[in-house]
Amino acid sequence: MTELPLVSQLIDALRCLPGVGPKSAQRMAFHLLERDRDGGRELARILAEAMARVMRCRKCRTLSEAELCALCANPRRDPSLLCVVEQPSGVIAIEQATDYRGLYFVLGGRLSPLDGIGPDQLGLDVLAERLRGDGVAELILATSPTVEGGATAQYIAQLAANAGVGVTRIAHGVPLGGDLEMVDGGTLAHAFAGRRAL
Amino acid sequence: MTELPLVSQLIDALRCLPGVGPKSAQRMAFHLLERDRDGGRELARILAEAMARVMRCRKCRTLSEAELCALCANPRRDPSLLCVVEQPSGVIAIEQATDYRGLYFVLGGRLSPLDGIGPDQLGLDVLAERLRGDGVAELILATSPTVEGGATAQYIAQLAANAGVGVTRIAHGVPLGGDLEMVDGGTLAHAFAGRRAL
Repeated sequence: MTELPLVSQLIDALRCLPGVGPKSAQRMAFHLLERDRDGGRELARILAEAMARVMRCRKCRTLSEAELCALCANPRRDPSLLCVVEQPSGVIAIEQATDYRGLYFVLGGRLSPLDGIGPDQLGLDVLAERLRGDGVAELILATSPTVEGGATAQYIAQLAANAGVGVTRIAHGVPLGGDLEMVDGGTLAHAFAGRRAL
Repeated sequence: MTELPLVSQLIDALRCLPGVGPKSAQRMAFHLLERDRDGGRELARILAEAMARVMRCRKCRTLSEAELCALCANPRRDPSLLCVVEQPSGVIAIEQATDYRGLYFVLGGRLSPLDGIGPDQLGLDVLAERLRGDGVAELILATSPTVEGGATAQYIAQLAANAGVGVTRIAHGVPLGGDLEMVDGGTLAHAFAGRRAL
């Protein structure tokens, strides 16, 4: 044989999915081939279309097949609120969990000079432009609570201060329903230091 | 908007994969869109091709894009040995783990009258035909060690006896490297009853 059978090719190809090893890939391939051809065909069609057509929204940089994503294009969202997240998944998480009605800006990462990720890679020039001209009253920082996420938040807070825009950062602390013993020490120390009057 | 954004459609479509819930589907979609477009395109192409072209080998009933699968078409395999497995994954497992050089027959399930799975659904008429005419000297049963798998093995053993073909069944017992305490009671009782002289 000059090339691998299609079934083996499919098992190999499925391993491009994160968290999918050889056993799961095989299980997925056989499941689709034996029990869900329609699902497999539909997945192939949407996958090809998404890979070809999804790009970044030119305003907020989230993933979108339109030049302006559905959120940026929605006239009922409040343009005076702007929430900065690291990844498109952050937009989805906030949309699902909160009743936030403002707009977003997706960095696509966090400042990490050692990895060559500076302000330009995160679109911070675009963000600074928007802070200066776009009627933003409050900038909400929702970057991750890590060292780089914190540094990124600091940098953006400075941009906002330069533009005269108020800045807030989402609260970090003990998660709701979290048992004190199960929370890591760093989080607990942070929550303790950040205690608020009742 | 009349239809969901492509990104949401992709997340939904990925959930047709077994073991993939909403969170993993989202992680997979963003991984492909942000970090592995080439892998996503390749997966879409192979998936579409496999869904359209993979069928069953007319001789052994395993999944194959050719009318005769690579194993059945290989003249160097020994046609006097025939191993019966339940699923195509069994063929792959035996090929990878053993130096078996014979051929296979894939049932596609096991006898289960309550679910409407009888001899015809498993292709046992085709198997009986093959046992009568095809020069098979040994039929190796590798059905699963369950009640239905056992009943299926019994049924096939009878077919083989009728055709004058010798029958063996792969050994069941304590897995290699298995700790006695960790093995379930049924397996241990089976292994104990099936002890052999050293």
